[in-house]
Amino acid sequence: MSDTQNPHLASHLQSLLPDSRKSLRDHVIPKLLKSIHDIAGTLRTSPSVTQVGTANAFGDDQLNVDVLAEEHIRKTITQCSSIVTASSEEDPVEKSSASSSTSSPAAKGKEVYTLAFDPLDGSSIIAPNWTVGTIMGIWDGPSALHQNPQEKQIAAILGVFGPRTTAMVALRLPGSDISTCFEVGFADDGRFEVVRKDVKLSQPPFKTRYFAPANMRAAAESPAYLSLINHFIKEKYTLRYSGGLVPDVVHALVKGHGVYLSPVTEKSKAKLRRLYELAPVALIVECAGGAALDSATGERVLEKNIEDTDERGGLICGNGEEVEAVKKAFLS
Amino acid sequence: MSDTQNPHLASHLQSLLPDSRKSLRDHVIPKLLKSIHDIAGTLRTSPSVTQVGTANAFGDDQLNVDVLAEEHIRKTITQCSSIVTASSEEDPVEKSSASSSTSSPAAKGKEVYTLAFDPLDGSSIIAPNWTVGTIMGIWDGPSALHQNPQEKQIAAILGVFGPRTTAMVALRLPGSDISTCFEVGFADDGRFEVVRKDVKLSQPPFKTRYFAPANMRAAAESPAYLSLINHFIKEKYTLRYSGGLVPDVVHALVKGHGVYLSPVTEKSKAKLRRLYELAPVALIVECAGGAALDSATGERVLEKNIEDTDERGGLICGNGEEVEAVKKAFLS
Repeated sequence: MSDTQNPHLASHLQSLLPDSRKSLRDHVIPKLLKSIHDIAGTLRTSPSVTQVGTANAFGDDQLNVDVLAEEHIRKTITQCSSIVTASSEEDPVEKSSASSSTSSPAAKGKEVYTLAFDPLDGSSIIAPNWTVGTIMGIWDGPSALHQNPQEKQIAAILGVFGPRTTAMVALRLPGSDISTCFEVGFADDGRFEVVRKDVKLSQPPFKTRYFAPANMRAAAESPAYLSLINHFIKEKYTLRYSGGLVPDVVHALVKGHGVYLSPVTEKSKAKLRRLYELAPVALIVECAGGAALDSATGERVLEKNIEDTDERGGLICGNGEEVEAVKKAFLS
Repeated sequence: MSDTQNPHLASHLQSLLPDSRKSLRDHVIPKLLKSIHDIAGTLRTSPSVTQVGTANAFGDDQLNVDVLAEEHIRKTITQCSSIVTASSEEDPVEKSSASSSTSSPAAKGKEVYTLAFDPLDGSSIIAPNWTVGTIMGIWDGPSALHQNPQEKQIAAILGVFGPRTTAMVALRLPGSDISTCFEVGFADDGRFEVVRKDVKLSQPPFKTRYFAPANMRAAAESPAYLSLINHFIKEKYTLRYSGGLVPDVVHALVKGHGVYLSPVTEKSKAKLRRLYELAPVALIVECAGGAALDSATGERVLEKNIEDTDERGGLICGNGEEVEAVKKAFLS
């Protein structure tokens, strides 16, 4: 895909990223967005979604569309020479990408990126035809592991597969004033446009307040979680909880308000993968002016290095004041 | 669209409906399903969803895609001469359809139907790109008003606009043993296939139990609702609540288990339209082996005639035993 096919996106990225990020700007982001469109096409034309019958590396049931989504992104990686390393929730081992094996861009001072992705998040809601998503984190350098996420994870994409295909894109470059979240909409022919240049969570007072309590079953054994849920009800927050991390987070970004909580309690272990889910979502939410904490520790998600692709955590994210209030109620 | 384009659906309908329902079988159902596919195309290619700025007859904000969905279905009605009357949530007055004005099929003993529809349900979740739906009820005779819904509402369709396009279709003909719910999947070219011939809610014991509590804010002022929500949490039901009636009901049908509750309390009035929402959903759920009660009265949704297009009610629907338990907890 050349820039000219997406002049709107190209000029928006041009206005944001300097020439030293030419490959990110002209290839990596546009091509990864193109792969979102390809995945949407595969989902749309798979009316009869069946289980492949194999489990992925983490033991989740794998649907055939998961495999196809993984293939679309892996193919895109081979087209981007600056993506030298990649790993995914379906294949969670960092590997050199084919396109980078012959030359060594790093040695020549070229851009070098690592992609960490969850090709299709929300497998439990694919069968009932609810909105699902793709999660991508783009890291500066040849690995996402043992790195400072605040410095090294410089971009994230959430692909949203619903009645339309949309994507949230976050960019944050250390040492620059670039910190932004924007929304992209796709047309049938693969072209896409920037539908909102500046996605920002609202400031109080809020017209409507939303909450998304993940794994509500955990409240049966956590008095703190149960009391928090009852607090939201009494304060008349509006419930929206699809059970898909991408649609649940994007709901807050589009509405301007929302707080999502995936708790970690004594009996309910941390579920979300730090590399494939938490880190990209945290960058998106922070770039939209919100906060993202690990509900297990209360620390910022992006504070701690990721040492292993299978590391997990919980999540409190959304508008800053809401996240702080939940942290207080839940962790104190 | 001729039958031959959808041999799978045509033969399935042929196996279900007699020649006395030829128009329903060969025209009305296939063409209404085709309109679901047309609406999906419109939603998909409307990346930037904006508010039209007009309110519909009930005072809801109307999105431009609502208007376009209405137009698709109205156009379909003109192509079906046996649909002699139609009304919708956007235009809630029963009117003779153009195609029926010159001849009088009723007088000739031909099939005569009334269509009542909600072109696009779930407007609050269109902007965040969550799954939304279309609701249709097909009534025997020239009006849906002042009729016995159990006898006269003979078919219903729920169109589901998510990553794929799907539809649930229910048929129940009085005086016959026809009572069925099946699921249809659409391909990009407008063809569709029957992906599940017999959609049935499961029998206990249930592997996973789901609940969808609508208007949870109402629990702030209803001790019965609050205690019911806490009961579901303590019993470790899984929460899935999108806020769209179609995806919420279809989730239960696909998973085989679920209970949806839209309460009516002293301070929270009945919200769902009996003609455009409750009656079609009730037929679908009953044909799938479940139950659908009006939460305001505890009566079956389909028990009472609809006297006015704006009549409203609440809803408890899903697996029979769950619905009975909620009724007991909520109404006693």
